[in-house]
Amino acid sequence: MKKLLLAAAALLAAMPSLAEDKPVPSPGEIVAAAPKGDWVAIPASDLLVMDLAPDTKGKPRRVVIQLMPPPFSQGWIGNIRLLAAAHWWDGTAVNRVQDNYVVQWGDPNADDKAKAKALPAGLEVMSESQYATKMTLETSRALDDPITSAHFFCPHGTSTEERNACREVILKTRGRRDPYNDLNGFYRGFPFAFSTATNAWPIHCYGMVGVGRDLSPNTGSGAELYVVIGHAPRHLDRNIALVGRVIEGVEHLSSLPRGTGGLGFYETPKERTKIRSIRLGAEVKGLPTYEYLSTESQSFAAYADARANRRDAFFIRPAGGADICNIPVPVRRVK
Amino acid sequence: MKKLLLAAAALLAAMPSLAEDKPVPSPGEIVAAAPKGDWVAIPASDLLVMDLAPDTKGKPRRVVIQLMPPPFSQGWIGNIRLLAAAHWWDGTAVNRVQDNYVVQWGDPNADDKAKAKALPAGLEVMSESQYATKMTLETSRALDDPITSAHFFCPHGTSTEERNACREVILKTRGRRDPYNDLNGFYRGFPFAFSTATNAWPIHCYGMVGVGRDLSPNTGSGAELYVVIGHAPRHLDRNIALVGRVIEGVEHLSSLPRGTGGLGFYETPKERTKIRSIRLGAEVKGLPTYEYLSTESQSFAAYADARANRRDAFFIRPAGGADICNIPVPVRRVK
Repeated sequence: MKKLLLAAAALLAAMPSLAEDKPVPSPGEIVAAAPKGDWVAIPASDLLVMDLAPDTKGKPRRVVIQLMPPPFSQGWIGNIRLLAAAHWWDGTAVNRVQDNYVVQWGDPNADDKAKAKALPAGLEVMSESQYATKMTLETSRALDDPITSAHFFCPHGTSTEERNACREVILKTRGRRDPYNDLNGFYRGFPFAFSTATNAWPIHCYGMVGVGRDLSPNTGSGAELYVVIGHAPRHLDRNIALVGRVIEGVEHLSSLPRGTGGLGFYETPKERTKIRSIRLGAEVKGLPTYEYLSTESQSFAAYADARANRRDAFFIRPAGGADICNIPVPVRRVK
Repeated sequence: MKKLLLAAAALLAAMPSLAEDKPVPSPGEIVAAAPKGDWVAIPASDLLVMDLAPDTKGKPRRVVIQLMPPPFSQGWIGNIRLLAAAHWWDGTAVNRVQDNYVVQWGDPNADDKAKAKALPAGLEVMSESQYATKMTLETSRALDDPITSAHFFCPHGTSTEERNACREVILKTRGRRDPYNDLNGFYRGFPFAFSTATNAWPIHCYGMVGVGRDLSPNTGSGAELYVVIGHAPRHLDRNIALVGRVIEGVEHLSSLPRGTGGLGFYETPKERTKIRSIRLGAEVKGLPTYEYLSTESQSFAAYADARANRRDAFFIRPAGGADICNIPVPVRRVK
């Protein structure tokens, strides 16, 4: 934790507007002051753009999703790319809104063989064992962006000793430990749980996008997707595949009327919200560039520390820790 | 944790419909099977009933709040009782809806001295030190419902040894430990964080109701209230007074359009949702009786265990733990 504080201190020293007697910067102010090099552009090919039917006042409702980076959930993501390229979701609908849980969309007739929309050819069938992708830290150099202890908010370091020391610090400070896992962190802008040195799995935080499925061994194709709109339902981790996160427009989903049927399904077709189109970002004209604050940057470390220890004027008593889902990864549009 | 499992096993044995070869009951099924004696009636005098203006289709929108039990936040709750009795909120509005955070209501002109609605006489001014109410476990017998280790999901026991043993079990199982605190539990149906043996404070879970305030030393009167509608903002714990929780109708707040101004405030008056009335339950005709599942009951222990370890058919891999805010306290209407 000492290093985190140092990182924050270094950042403060670098910002002339924040002299010693000025208020301590809020997490938002730290993000606003982050240097350009700490931001990572998201390729348009990794974006999924959903346009709902306009609202009752005719205002457009666009939701932008960033797909998860390799090596996670790539089979489902491949299916999603196929479905989007085939314009398969056009004319489907949001069928389920369950309060403090999820918004879910897809073919409303999926369970009715006579009416169900045919899926495009070439979709991959995924297996249960792929819910938690193995990601061996010891061989992480094989990835083009190697996993290091930096992903745990620790000083950069790649030796076993450094990683172990880092882990010790985290366990002592309780900073990233929670009832679900001992070691949590971020990888390429996404929240992950890391198990004892050999596995990682994505976390169901607010705004994360997952793959609806029937009872096991069904794993879902990716044609039915949901977004978390409540307190992180972490019991779904490793039980359902996560494929991305909403980076803009989640309010168009979270503010939809709740369904009054079981599990929040709408009871009548007219209650559903129509989906006008879902496209891969590369196919959408005039889409702005989005960037996320590198979760391996010093700015992010300072931001995460400030989220865990609010020292800005409103706060009387800093919490001394933060839930991984209470450290949302900052995203911005590039002007 | 062994005792929890035993409690669950005992419950199973007591339910003839759930023989050994039947699926393991879900948390909802455990709640449905809870005996009548495990439910606690909430006095109408502890309810706050908010009627919003009907929605665009003319449907009524009622939100029912249970006020927090003594000894917590009683000064603010006293103010709230005064404000409700004076019908002070009638004609005020929901002024702020911030996605994944809070819905807030009160006098929209509160910050404009010329237009602000006068507060009723007799409101108490609370101090910062009252945010976290001291609740000494050693003297807890003074309360009419003594605090025992049962509040930590442990076998009943009141000696220091029993409490220490209980705490050990919790720490080992990680069950109630989180980045914010080592020991969390429930007291009279509300989620609480317990510090090392002498203090407790309420937790900002989804649906909890808190008191809006300006910068410290202002502590808020209770005239401006908010409800959590996103991932638990635990950094607010001990910084803002919590006074209750929504037990019915939270969807009428969580599905409101998000405000587009700073902090989710609406930018124009017409965007606000009018509050028709807020009354203490005792003043509302025809109000049903509400009961919550006693958080000291064996049914609740089995339910909490099932939430932490989903073994029902949908789940492949139980989580092995649960965030305190992922164990919402069940509430029902009595027929």
